[in-house]
Amino acid sequence: MKTTRYSAIALLAAVVLTTINARAQDPLPSWNDGPAKQSIINFVEKVTKPGSPDFVPVPERIATFDNDGTLWCEKPLPVQVYFALDRVKTLAPQHPEWKTKEPFASILKGDPKGLMAGGERGLVEMLMATHAGNTTEEFEQIVKDWISTAKHPKTGKLYTEMVYQPMLEVLAYLRANGFKTFIVSGGGIEFMRPWTERVYGVPPEQVIGSSVKTKFEMRDGKPVLVRLPELNFFDDKGGKPVGINQHIGRRPIAAFGNSDGDLQMLQYTGAGSGARFCLYVRHDDDLREYAYGRKDHLAKLDQGLDEAAAKGWTVASMKDDWKTIFPGEKK
Amino acid sequence: MKTTRYSAIALLAAVVLTTINARAQDPLPSWNDGPAKQSIINFVEKVTKPGSPDFVPVPERIATFDNDGTLWCEKPLPVQVYFALDRVKTLAPQHPEWKTKEPFASILKGDPKGLMAGGERGLVEMLMATHAGNTTEEFEQIVKDWISTAKHPKTGKLYTEMVYQPMLEVLAYLRANGFKTFIVSGGGIEFMRPWTERVYGVPPEQVIGSSVKTKFEMRDGKPVLVRLPELNFFDDKGGKPVGINQHIGRRPIAAFGNSDGDLQMLQYTGAGSGARFCLYVRHDDDLREYAYGRKDHLAKLDQGLDEAAAKGWTVASMKDDWKTIFPGEKK
Repeated sequence: MKTTRYSAIALLAAVVLTTINARAQDPLPSWNDGPAKQSIINFVEKVTKPGSPDFVPVPERIATFDNDGTLWCEKPLPVQVYFALDRVKTLAPQHPEWKTKEPFASILKGDPKGLMAGGERGLVEMLMATHAGNTTEEFEQIVKDWISTAKHPKTGKLYTEMVYQPMLEVLAYLRANGFKTFIVSGGGIEFMRPWTERVYGVPPEQVIGSSVKTKFEMRDGKPVLVRLPELNFFDDKGGKPVGINQHIGRRPIAAFGNSDGDLQMLQYTGAGSGARFCLYVRHDDDLREYAYGRKDHLAKLDQGLDEAAAKGWTVASMKDDWKTIFPGEKK
Repeated sequence: MKTTRYSAIALLAAVVLTTINARAQDPLPSWNDGPAKQSIINFVEKVTKPGSPDFVPVPERIATFDNDGTLWCEKPLPVQVYFALDRVKTLAPQHPEWKTKEPFASILKGDPKGLMAGGERGLVEMLMATHAGNTTEEFEQIVKDWISTAKHPKTGKLYTEMVYQPMLEVLAYLRANGFKTFIVSGGGIEFMRPWTERVYGVPPEQVIGSSVKTKFEMRDGKPVLVRLPELNFFDDKGGKPVGINQHIGRRPIAAFGNSDGDLQMLQYTGAGSGARFCLYVRHDDDLREYAYGRKDHLAKLDQGLDEAAAKGWTVASMKDDWKTIFPGEKK
C-alpha cells in the first residue's frame, strides 16, 4: 500500500520534471547555437520576466512577421505570382483579348517576364485585378483549392511545405510567452488568410496584407462582399507601419523581415520605447534554399543590411544559423 | 478550538460556494429575466456545448458590437462630436478664418447645428479633418486627456461612466465562453482605441472604425505616422461588413447594434451557416436614458426593427430588459 503510493508520487514527479525539462531545454531546436539564436532568447526572457526593467505586459507583446522570404520561400518567384499565373490560365477562355494584351499574352505563352515588367507595385495591382469579381467566400475557396495542390517548380513540394522550420519555432516560442503574432505582408491579405492559421498558427484577424476594395451587396437575397478590381491598400515599405497602425493600433515590440520592403516596419518597431527586437532573415544558402539580397530585383536587402549593422539588429544567416530550413528535413 | 476551526472552514466554504453559485447562476445580473436575456444565454450555451449540432470551435467565436448607442450613450449627440467641438475651440486661435467659415463659425458660437447639417457622412468627414495633422501618438494622448476629464452635458458624468452595464456583462460573458469581442463603429478608430481596453476589455487590435489616412515619415530622425486630413474608411452601413472582412477575415457569429447603420452588419452576421445571434438595443427609456428610434436623425432604428421582427432577431428593450443602465446604479 505504502509502496504503491510512493510509486505513484515518483511517477507524478517524473512526469512533472520531464515536462519542465522539455520546456527548459530548447525552444528553438532548429537554430544553431550562436548570437542570432541567443539574441531571440535574451529578448524574450527579459520582456517576460516580472520585475525586470524591460518587462512588457502581455497585451503589449505584439510581434509582426513579413511572410514572403521571412516565413516561407519566395523564389524563383513569390508564391502568389504562381497563383496569379494559374488564375490567368484558368480564366483565359473567358478573355480571348488576353492573347494579344500584355501582361496576359506573355503569361499565356509561359513567360512571366511581362508580369514582372511593371515592378512591385504593378505586380500587386495586376495580382489584385486578376483576383477580383468573386465574392470573398468564393475567392477563399479558390485559394484553398489551389494551395492544397499547387507545387513548387523546383522541389515539387507543396508551397505550404516550404515554410521555414526555424521561423515556425520562433512563432510558437513567442506565443508560448504571451505574444500575439501577426503577419504583415505585401502579399494579398485574402491570399494568406485561408491557410495561415493551419500552417503558422496565425488566425485571419492577425493577418495584414495588400487588398482590393470590396463592396457589400445582396446576391439572390444573400448578403455578400464582392471583390472589386481596385487596389485598396498596398502593404509594403512605408505601408507596413500604416497597416500595422490600422489593424493593430499598437507599435510592435518585435519585427521580423527579409528585405528592404520590411525596413520601415523594423524602423517603426525599433524606435518605440523600452526593449525592442528586430531581425532580418538573410538568404545566403544557395545549397539548401536560395542566395539573394543586395541586388535582388523583387526582394532586395541592401539598405536594410546597413541599417541592421548600424542599429544592432539581429541578422540571421540561413546558412549558419539554421540547422534545418524546411519542416521534416534531417538535422 | 476544534469547533472554532470547523466553523471557520464552514464559513469559508459557504462564501466560496455562494460565489461560485452566484457566478454559475446568472452571467447577466443586470438583465431582467425575459426572452431577450434568455436568447443570449441559449445561444452561448448551444454554440459552446461540445457535441451539440450548433457547436462552434473557439477560433470562430467572433462577436461584433457597434459602439455609439450599443455600448455607451450617444445622446444628446455622439461623444465624438463633443470631442470635435472641443477640438475646434482649442484650435480656433490658430484659425482666425473659422470665425466666418461654416461649420466652424456655428460651433464657435456654441451652436452645433452647422456641424450636423451635412448629415452623417459629412459629420464623419468633418470629424476626421479636425482630427488630422498630429502623429498617431500625439492624437492618442489628446484623446486620453480629453476622455479622462470631459463630462456629459446632462448627467455631469464622465462619458466612460455612461457605458451600459448590461452590455459590459454581455462582453464579459461572451469572452468567458471563448469569444473574441470586437467593436465595429462608425466612430473614429483612433478615438476609441485609447480607452476601449480599460473600459470594455477590448484591445486596440479588436477595434474597427472610421479612419483618416496616415503617412509614414521621419520626424527629427524618428519614424512616425502622421494623420492626414483625408478620409480613409467610413465604417457605417455597408461599410461595416467591409471593415469586418478587412480586419477580422471571418464572418461573426454574433452581432449587436442599435440603429439602421448596423443593419448590414447584422444581415451579414445572420446570413452565415450554423447558429447565429443578432441583437438590437432599443432605446425606449426616456426616464433612465433616452427614447429614440424610428424617426431619429442620426441613429434611426426603423428598417432594422422590421427586419428584426421578420428574422427573429432579439430586440432588447432598455426599459423592460435592463435592471440598470449605467455601472454603479442601484438595481
